[in-house]
Amino acid sequence: MDVHDEEIEESSDNEVVNVSGEYSVTPWQVDGVVDYNKIVQDFGTRLITPEIIEKLKIISGNIHPLLSRGFFFSHRDFDTILDAYRNGDNFYLYTGRGPSGHVHMGHLMPWFFTKYLQDTFKSRLLFQITDDEKFLYSQHLSLQEVENYAYDNILDVIAMGFDPKLTRIIIDTKNIHALYPLYLEISKRLTFSTARAVFGFKPSSNIGMIGFPAIQAAPCFLPSLIEQKPTRVLIPAAIDQDPYWRITRDVAEKMGYYKPAQIHSKFVPSLEMNGKMSSSKPTSAIFTTDNPETIENKISGAYTGGQPSVGLQRILGGNPDACPVFWYLSHFFDDGKDSFERSLKCRTGNLLCGECKSDLTTQTKLFISKFTRRRDQARNKIGSFLYEDNPFD
Amino acid sequence: MDVHDEEIEESSDNEVVNVSGEYSVTPWQVDGVVDYNKIVQDFGTRLITPEIIEKLKIISGNIHPLLSRGFFFSHRDFDTILDAYRNGDNFYLYTGRGPSGHVHMGHLMPWFFTKYLQDTFKSRLLFQITDDEKFLYSQHLSLQEVENYAYDNILDVIAMGFDPKLTRIIIDTKNIHALYPLYLEISKRLTFSTARAVFGFKPSSNIGMIGFPAIQAAPCFLPSLIEQKPTRVLIPAAIDQDPYWRITRDVAEKMGYYKPAQIHSKFVPSLEMNGKMSSSKPTSAIFTTDNPETIENKISGAYTGGQPSVGLQRILGGNPDACPVFWYLSHFFDDGKDSFERSLKCRTGNLLCGECKSDLTTQTKLFISKFTRRRDQARNKIGSFLYEDNPFD
Repeated sequence: MDVHDEEIEESSDNEVVNVSGEYSVTPWQVDGVVDYNKIVQDFGTRLITPEIIEKLKIISGNIHPLLSRGFFFSHRDFDTILDAYRNGDNFYLYTGRGPSGHVHMGHLMPWFFTKYLQDTFKSRLLFQITDDEKFLYSQHLSLQEVENYAYDNILDVIAMGFDPKLTRIIIDTKNIHALYPLYLEISKRLTFSTARAVFGFKPSSNIGMIGFPAIQAAPCFLPSLIEQKPTRVLIPAAIDQDPYWRITRDVAEKMGYYKPAQIHSKFVPSLEMNGKMSSSKPTSAIFTTDNPETIENKISGAYTGGQPSVGLQRILGGNPDACPVFWYLSHFFDDGKDSFERSLKCRTGNLLCGECKSDLTTQTKLFISKFTRRRDQARNKIGSFLYEDNPFD
Repeated sequence: MDVHDEEIEESSDNEVVNVSGEYSVTPWQVDGVVDYNKIVQDFGTRLITPEIIEKLKIISGNIHPLLSRGFFFSHRDFDTILDAYRNGDNFYLYTGRGPSGHVHMGHLMPWFFTKYLQDTFKSRLLFQITDDEKFLYSQHLSLQEVENYAYDNILDVIAMGFDPKLTRIIIDTKNIHALYPLYLEISKRLTFSTARAVFGFKPSSNIGMIGFPAIQAAPCFLPSLIEQKPTRVLIPAAIDQDPYWRITRDVAEKMGYYKPAQIHSKFVPSLEMNGKMSSSKPTSAIFTTDNPETIENKISGAYTGGQPSVGLQRILGGNPDACPVFWYLSHFFDDGKDSFERSLKCRTGNLLCGECKSDLTTQTKLFISKFTRRRDQARNKIGSFLYEDNPFD
């Protein structure tokens, strides 16, 4: 049993429903033990093979650790994207964020990978902020509050270091004029029965929710309008987003566009046991806006794969596979060699949880401190990133 | 039996479902004998009383023939609107058009009445062009074709002579940025089960259709945003639109706005027997773009309340109550005295259908000729009417 699979978060910006007997991934929570191989089967996606990684390596010269470590593990048409690129046909990247709160480190992981793809392929990136969705789904947030989070979250996006020449941020309520004609073309092709089957709408669902999937699908085709020719799009996002793109792929060719390709990540573990990493559970996650003391407290209280006592830890060793502290160290800060050594020392009882927590605290404080500086600088750069102020030429 | 009730059209721009045992008014057709008193009961609206007409007369000094003839016959809160006006609180007018084809004379009738209200009260008017709706509901129209009709139909709206200082035309796809925040607030408050009950959505309905009622509701509250205070709105439209405003009224006060008031018209008869006046049946209607020869042919072939032969007509007399030719003459061209005399001569066999058709042809050709001139001049005035170019100060 992998604790990472049990303690999962709604890491991505827009969530979808998939329910099987063993696990349930809904717009609101993830329950049960997620078997990623089973998701791939259930969703009909494909595992990323060594051949695809080799193909990427030939083009890019390097493989991002999130790929070699298997955090990005599944895809649709990623191989086609690579083949087209080798034939001189570049693609747009598209990902997004639902601004229902502050951004935490889990949110950043697909963004790091997206930046790697942008840097590698010099691809244009559309980054959608779904303030409309978060308002429609929220029990308590006003439209103004969601919009405040939208501008707060944009600072995080810009702080990631995306290329301002190649990146445009779409805020749904601000850029609806650009999305709406595509929304109409897409929504006309999606029946309620299809949407209900995919997203689990109920009679009590509001009618805004029901139309929303077509808003989220629209940026898949916006590049074709910008480029004035059918243009490929690659979406890096967590696997729970796949149903959105599945229905988008169903309508794409009828509309004269390529089916959007995808590369899917796993979920990000919580710092706590049996909890989800979630904006609504502040102790489960490190936010980019957390101060050093908060970071110390959260990591200090984090769940680990260690034994109940130092004595038992020395005798039995810990379990790094079930340890969110190890997960964060290995995915954010350690290189492969560090990780292997840390793992070995943990399993053999030669490393105590306090040491790992101390390492993670130091590294995280340093990371957040640097990120905060870039985030502050981002305030002066917003205009050059917003689609409305400055669409691609 | 009144042929006017049997030969009815989808006169208005956006249609709704109401089904009872005796008649059925759906977004796509009107079947059966419409009993307007029963509609008032079924919909829960109120008949316009002599007291209300008297109240209007005190303010306006004159009563529009479409009101005195009972073409506008039902309302919600029209009396409240008049009382508020007398207390110094003006209101916005809001009506619209779904651009699925050219405009015909039936479409103009509520617009004449809207112009009367604007002239009387000096009210600002929002005129919504629901190009999105017509695209979502159409089996064959492309978005581009609907947009072409939108600009074609705008010429008719401007040719009506609305005050450019007091009138703004909203084209949904062009002004969605202004409507979308209201759409979100409204759609969040409407459940699928409510929308299904009111509009009869089916599993095969597309998800764009399902969200659309909240787009049509949005201009009811836009005046409150423009004026930065809760602002009353009066909607002149055919009675089949009432369900849209009923659900809008249900959410209005929760959103801090007045419930939109309405004044409802009856339907407009076809020129043909047992047919609907409809853009999809060109012989059933006179379009503002028809040339003189077409007008002659259509009226020449029109159904009448006359007898099968001249001889029988002389003996038995005709039935003006069941005659669309009489209906158009009386509602568009004759004054009350003319109508009464024409009706008397018809019933007593002293007027043949050919004479009425000849009168209607002459008058219609003259009317359309003048309208065409104003329509041509409208091309230079579009900018001053479009909401996007020039919202109210």
